[in-house]
Amino acid sequence: MAVHEAERHAMTRALELAARGPRGANPQVGAVILSPEGEILAEGWHHGAGTPHAEVDALSKLHGDAARGATAVVTLEPCNHTGRTGPCAIALIDAGISRVIYALDDPGAASGGGAERLRGAGVEVEAGEQADDARSLISDWLTAQSLGRPHITVKWAQSLDGRAAAADGTSQWITGPAARADVHRRRSAADAIIVGTGTALADDPALTARDGDRLYEHQPIPVVIGSRETPTDAAVRRHPHEAVFYGTRDLHVVVADLHDRGIQTAFIEGGPTLASAFIAAGLADRVLAYVAPVLLGGDRLALTDIGVPTIEAARRLTIEEWVPLGADLLAVAHFTEPQSEGVR
Amino acid sequence: MAVHEAERHAMTRALELAARGPRGANPQVGAVILSPEGEILAEGWHHGAGTPHAEVDALSKLHGDAARGATAVVTLEPCNHTGRTGPCAIALIDAGISRVIYALDDPGAASGGGAERLRGAGVEVEAGEQADDARSLISDWLTAQSLGRPHITVKWAQSLDGRAAAADGTSQWITGPAARADVHRRRSAADAIIVGTGTALADDPALTARDGDRLYEHQPIPVVIGSRETPTDAAVRRHPHEAVFYGTRDLHVVVADLHDRGIQTAFIEGGPTLASAFIAAGLADRVLAYVAPVLLGGDRLALTDIGVPTIEAARRLTIEEWVPLGADLLAVAHFTEPQSEGVR
Repeated sequence: MAVHEAERHAMTRALELAARGPRGANPQVGAVILSPEGEILAEGWHHGAGTPHAEVDALSKLHGDAARGATAVVTLEPCNHTGRTGPCAIALIDAGISRVIYALDDPGAASGGGAERLRGAGVEVEAGEQADDARSLISDWLTAQSLGRPHITVKWAQSLDGRAAAADGTSQWITGPAARADVHRRRSAADAIIVGTGTALADDPALTARDGDRLYEHQPIPVVIGSRETPTDAAVRRHPHEAVFYGTRDLHVVVADLHDRGIQTAFIEGGPTLASAFIAAGLADRVLAYVAPVLLGGDRLALTDIGVPTIEAARRLTIEEWVPLGADLLAVAHFTEPQSEGVR
Repeated sequence: MAVHEAERHAMTRALELAARGPRGANPQVGAVILSPEGEILAEGWHHGAGTPHAEVDALSKLHGDAARGATAVVTLEPCNHTGRTGPCAIALIDAGISRVIYALDDPGAASGGGAERLRGAGVEVEAGEQADDARSLISDWLTAQSLGRPHITVKWAQSLDGRAAAADGTSQWITGPAARADVHRRRSAADAIIVGTGTALADDPALTARDGDRLYEHQPIPVVIGSRETPTDAAVRRHPHEAVFYGTRDLHVVVADLHDRGIQTAFIEGGPTLASAFIAAGLADRVLAYVAPVLLGGDRLALTDIGVPTIEAARRLTIEEWVPLGADLLAVAHFTEPQSEGVR
């Protein structure tokens, strides 16, 4: 059976509803319940981990047998998994829903199989409606799901010859205002921004995303890794979000915990030791290298050791874009070979 | 008085003649002697240091009083200086030349003043005819004259993070075939190519400019700087030009000697120590940095110490061009501040 026009409209609406939900450990999902005549009976969306899924949120707004014979339009395949909430497939079946339209298949090993369970109970199921838009909405979540950790961007500024600072440690400013503004703009799209204690202590960074003096509406959660204590009056402690501190240097432990916290994308912003450690550990997906047209020489390197013993082991990058920013040039790149777990 | 059409044609011809001469310590100059009716009586050009200047070369082809009342059309102001040859201004006066057209003023402090001497002897003088073409022809010579040394390009290949090699010293190939072809093409336009003995011993480079397997017609003179001996069977000793060896590490001595030898443009091609020494000494005018989209980390740096103690002293570059070469990117740049003699 084809998808009706009312159902297509309902899916567009469900995608709008999904976007109201927060980014986090769970995907953003929206749902609309339609009467057999195509009238909207109820709407719902997922409000974040621990709260009802979108379908259940929508059903909760109906009383008695109102959903019997109705159609559920959902942006993601109804789950078949008992987590902090019961399986949505069961909830839909129990409510008497006779038809389900969904956009994207559930990529989860545990949560998948909802469509099959629905069909087994005699519910008509149509998959793939507006799948591209649904995928685009939760692409970061999907990436984090497939990686089992946040998608990680390592960002640094360097002189053409790869230095982060001059011999005496001074570095303000290697890059110009256009490059710095670009950093803040991209930062504002990340869920977390990570620094080592060395950088936290040396630079006392605010780790906010700023447009001039104004804070961007979305702020990444500040994360500090390392065993040294960050002072109580550190700028990072005045961040709009409470900072997360990790005493461990085991980056696999850190990224697993960030994943559990619902962090889908993270920026590594320094210093050179931490950036190099993420790359060496195979925990870097993307590179943002802001290259300033200056030469510094000396030993204040933007990257230190990344575990490349010989040229065949060079970490090859695929440049997505060279972006001119004033006199500076930004390399936007991803690692050509997939990150190997064996690097650990 | 204006320049006649016949004189203009003669200047175009004189520029062609000039181009026949070799690049070297003296500029390329051409000369045409015209009868009062505008007929070409004789042509000449400068065949290289120690041989007659262009005007004298042309006059030598005339007998008796043939030049009396004639016009000399010369691409450079006739010299007023006794070097290995006598002043051309005197030679023209003695030959009875009554009118001189020249393109460019002689920039030499010692050799200049020819026009004045000619006028003092009652010769009509017109300056500036086709000056741009004349300047373009000898621009490298003019630059070397004003610098008092060759124009120096420091060239290197690096990973994005500024390394010339992996930890074990392997570096073939950081950059791709398009970048390597570009190096050879640019090399073929240089008068000399300079390496340190470290590079000569480690890599045994041919220091030729090659288009695939074919040698380019013009080959830079190979120069090796350093106290260690280059083996008798080294590739550089099979170069079409005899190699020049300098035992000194005083780069000011080296460039002064290269200037005396008529080297107008030189490429510094490695290794990192020599490249850095030229930059630190204020003896680098231009940078060609071939940047490959790889990360290497480690301590095999493309540049080492260039004498920058603090960020305000960063050696700022003006990027003339970022040239995509396959997956690589070439930065063509010159130093924003003029090279300071005080850096010495």
